[in-house]
Amino acid sequence: MEFSFSLDEVVGMVGGGEVRGRFGGRVTGIAGLPEAGEGDLSFLGNPKYKGGVAGSGASVILLPEGFAGEPGEGRAFILVKSPSLALARFCGRLERELWRKPAAGRHASAVVAEGADVAADAVVGPLCVVEAGAVIGAGAWLEAQVFVGRNARIGAGTRLGPRAAVLAECVVGERVTLHAGVVIGSDGFGYEFSGGRHEKVPQVGNVEVGDDVEIGANTAVDRARFGRTVIGEGTKIDNLVQIGHNVVIGKHCILCGQVGVAGSTVIGDYAVLGGQTGVAGHLKIGAGAKFGAKTGVAADVEAGAAMWGSPALAYNAEQRLVVLRRRLPELFARVGEIERRLGAPEKASA
Amino acid sequence: MEFSFSLDEVVGMVGGGEVRGRFGGRVTGIAGLPEAGEGDLSFLGNPKYKGGVAGSGASVILLPEGFAGEPGEGRAFILVKSPSLALARFCGRLERELWRKPAAGRHASAVVAEGADVAADAVVGPLCVVEAGAVIGAGAWLEAQVFVGRNARIGAGTRLGPRAAVLAECVVGERVTLHAGVVIGSDGFGYEFSGGRHEKVPQVGNVEVGDDVEIGANTAVDRARFGRTVIGEGTKIDNLVQIGHNVVIGKHCILCGQVGVAGSTVIGDYAVLGGQTGVAGHLKIGAGAKFGAKTGVAADVEAGAAMWGSPALAYNAEQRLVVLRRRLPELFARVGEIERRLGAPEKASA
Amino acid sequence: MEFSFSLDEVVGMVGGGEVRGRFGGRVTGIAGLPEAGEGDLSFLGNPKYKGGVAGSGASVILLPEGFAGEPGEGRAFILVKSPSLALARFCGRLERELWRKPAAGRHASAVVAEGADVAADAVVGPLCVVEAGAVIGAGAWLEAQVFVGRNARIGAGTRLGPRAAVLAECVVGERVTLHAGVVIGSDGFGYEFSGGRHEKVPQVGNVEVGDDVEIGANTAVDRARFGRTVIGEGTKIDNLVQIGHNVVIGKHCILCGQVGVAGSTVIGDYAVLGGQTGVAGHLKIGAGAKFGAKTGVAADVEAGAAMWGSPALAYNAEQRLVVLRRRLPELFARVGEIERRLGAPEKASA
Repeated sequence: MEFSFSLDEVVGMVGGGEVRGRFGGRVTGIAGLPEAGEGDLSFLGNPKYKGGVAGSGASVILLPEGFAGEPGEGRAFILVKSPSLALARFCGRLERELWRKPAAGRHASAVVAEGADVAADAVVGPLCVVEAGAVIGAGAWLEAQVFVGRNARIGAGTRLGPRAAVLAECVVGERVTLHAGVVIGSDGFGYEFSGGRHEKVPQVGNVEVGDDVEIGANTAVDRARFGRTVIGEGTKIDNLVQIGHNVVIGKHCILCGQVGVAGSTVIGDYAVLGGQTGVAGHLKIGAGAKFGAKTGVAADVEAGAAMWGSPALAYNAEQRLVVLRRRLPELFARVGEIERRLGAPEKASA
Repeated sequence: MEFSFSLDEVVGMVGGGEVRGRFGGRVTGIAGLPEAGEGDLSFLGNPKYKGGVAGSGASVILLPEGFAGEPGEGRAFILVKSPSLALARFCGRLERELWRKPAAGRHASAVVAEGADVAADAVVGPLCVVEAGAVIGAGAWLEAQVFVGRNARIGAGTRLGPRAAVLAECVVGERVTLHAGVVIGSDGFGYEFSGGRHEKVPQVGNVEVGDDVEIGANTAVDRARFGRTVIGEGTKIDNLVQIGHNVVIGKHCILCGQVGVAGSTVIGDYAVLGGQTGVAGHLKIGAGAKFGAKTGVAADVEAGAAMWGSPALAYNAEQRLVVLRRRLPELFARVGEIERRLGAPEKASA
Repeated sequence: MEFSFSLDEVVGMVGGGEVRGRFGGRVTGIAGLPEAGEGDLSFLGNPKYKGGVAGSGASVILLPEGFAGEPGEGRAFILVKSPSLALARFCGRLERELWRKPAAGRHASAVVAEGADVAADAVVGPLCVVEAGAVIGAGAWLEAQVFVGRNARIGAGTRLGPRAAVLAECVVGERVTLHAGVVIGSDGFGYEFSGGRHEKVPQVGNVEVGDDVEIGANTAVDRARFGRTVIGEGTKIDNLVQIGHNVVIGKHCILCGQVGVAGSTVIGDYAVLGGQTGVAGHLKIGAGAKFGAKTGVAADVEAGAAMWGSPALAYNAEQRLVVLRRRLPELFARVGEIERRLGAPEKASA
């Protein structure tokens, strides 16, 4: 994204701060300390990298209050309470520019059914489909090629990326972001085996996505067999995640990329699931439980537990086993040596 | 989904049964025995939960014939041969309501090429694309924003969810369901390394999807290098599954979420693959083989085998190894104790 | 795909060769030696299968120069330098037919914003969306329902499959193929935990996809927090792969199906990642490193290393551990036997 700001403008955007030195050019990029060059804004997010400040090519650096040091000629420091927060403020400003919301209204190419209830200040972008009975809340933004099914409800201030789909009867809260390609409300995976065939179990529940949830690209959340599949308020889900039918995910959880959660499992608030972790169906995962990447969860987990491995163990136990497994060659050798020292077993008398 | 039925209407919908007690209100929801409340229909699917019947707040409960017990005041039992089947019938009725098929015909916004052959009673929903030479069978339903490529064929009674894509030359059978975001016929992943670059091997085969197949949201099935990638009749595939080129999957298989099957592997009828399982390329998996979640399959598997782990072993063997691995700390301690008892080895003379 | 060629036409399409025998019919299919029948073209790609040539039902077989043997009555051999290359040439010809590029121009149903810069000879297919400031290069082909966001750039000769999406500000090189459902430029997964909630870290960087890259169906590549997420020239990525923000993937890498790479990891040129492999964030993976399927990478990896397992070890070490783990029952038995021979430990005196 092209942008260009003076030092004074940057100071204003980050909410003020103590300025040391002077940069008379334009800030046109953002970069980490080691990569930054002329025109870049950089920042010291973690004090342990402070040694990288002096050598950085950045023109302007956000630093914590009390930082000892002066910028080189033609460079500037901005000292703030939290450099990370200051950078986030700067980026937030850019973000609004990046995702410039169009004027309210329906694009002429969108197909909005009669009987859909679209708020006057909502945006329905090009080639979106909104079916009958759907409700699009105040200020919601359907970017492009979005699908909202019959009787589905999209909360106020929610943004649906290109090609996101919210199927019939599903409910999405306020200030939610669904990224490109997300599917909310695909059928749960349920069959009964009868007469040599898998007969479909109808899936007539829905999905409820709480307020302030964010769901990553091409993730799929299945509707309940009956009742609801639930994504709790404030929970953040990464790309390509699979959520089965009747799963209930608590509030403020983190599900990293390619996680899979099988049907009817209940996950407590503030749980954190590392990438590619899989959770079997019908389990109870306590609040605040944490799972390392690639963990396979096959049993209930207590609140606050830290788990790893497949099948999952307590993190420390798994870590110890990982180390001991690497010592198997040594253990086999030691046992062989013991046997050598003991000599041949007395097989006849054994 | 909002609905409202009297007790008599419910009895009719589930195909009749012996009614005990009386519920004079309206049935407006479905819930499991523990969660059910006033107005809910519930059911006893598994006899081991029969203890939960008396305490359930459900207004109407489906129970197996011969169930001993009477409902409380203002509640009703319906005794049927199979409560699960009865519930499925009830839900099937709701499902037809949930996915209310529009009148036959092409939505004005759909782009149907000249030379496409669309059955008179098929539904081509809003903003679908049907290319030249494509054939859409009797009663097929393309929901919205669906893509059907050149010369692709969609069988009678098949339903393509929003944004499903069937690419050129691919063939989909009858009564198939492709959920939202499915891709049938993406290129296989094939290259030859030459001159420091990966040169593409053209992928000119197709995909054939058998009758009564169901494929979950955002799953991808690659076209064959040449010849066919095959999904056998009656097979059910969950969300976010990856099927490589020239794979042949038998009839009535189950592939759970996020499974991956690499190129040219052949899987027999009635195989069951647990979630996140991966199968390497060019393997033969016998009919009825079963794989636990997260299994990694790197060698051929015999018909009927039950496998688990990565790389996969016979299920029982893997289960034993999982247990023994957890005892590694104990084993190291025991070997250490033996060495202590034996004293220092006679290194000089060894 | 239906086609029909005479033997002479086939010889011309593969670039010539020595013809033995005569096939007077039409070549209408391609198949491997064991499956091939009347009318099929087949080939000997690997000399170890030469025993299958005599018994193959193929009408025409591509064979290496110097092959000893004569075709049966009514069949033909074509002897060429490289049968695989000859077949690729034949298939390449079919491929151009399979993906017959429409005439240049914008389909009437496409929504192209004022201020988008579309090359005169580019193809913008039905129901595509191209936003303001986007640049579509010479000869680029947007198949159908494609999304190209604000200020995004698509290089010359690049092809975007149905429903591929390149979001705002992202840059795609020349001769790139993005398959159906690909998402380029979804937000990176970054939050700061504050006051019991995950506050979004704005993601204002972009994605740069190099020349000659191919990316498989429904794969997602996140935009950088700031700066760039990079897919290097010539790299090939399979279906359902997840690439996190600020990841830098080198040139000519191979990422198989369902691989996940977490944020800020840097992967060197010519790396090869097997299916379902996961790579943690902020790692450095050296050039030419290779990873077996389902590997979990939690630490930096040196150039040229071959790795396997989770957490990953050197391939040979992991292979040895896989074997020794299978011998755990034996090891436990041996230790038990040793203890038996030593008798009860002298616990009192210990």
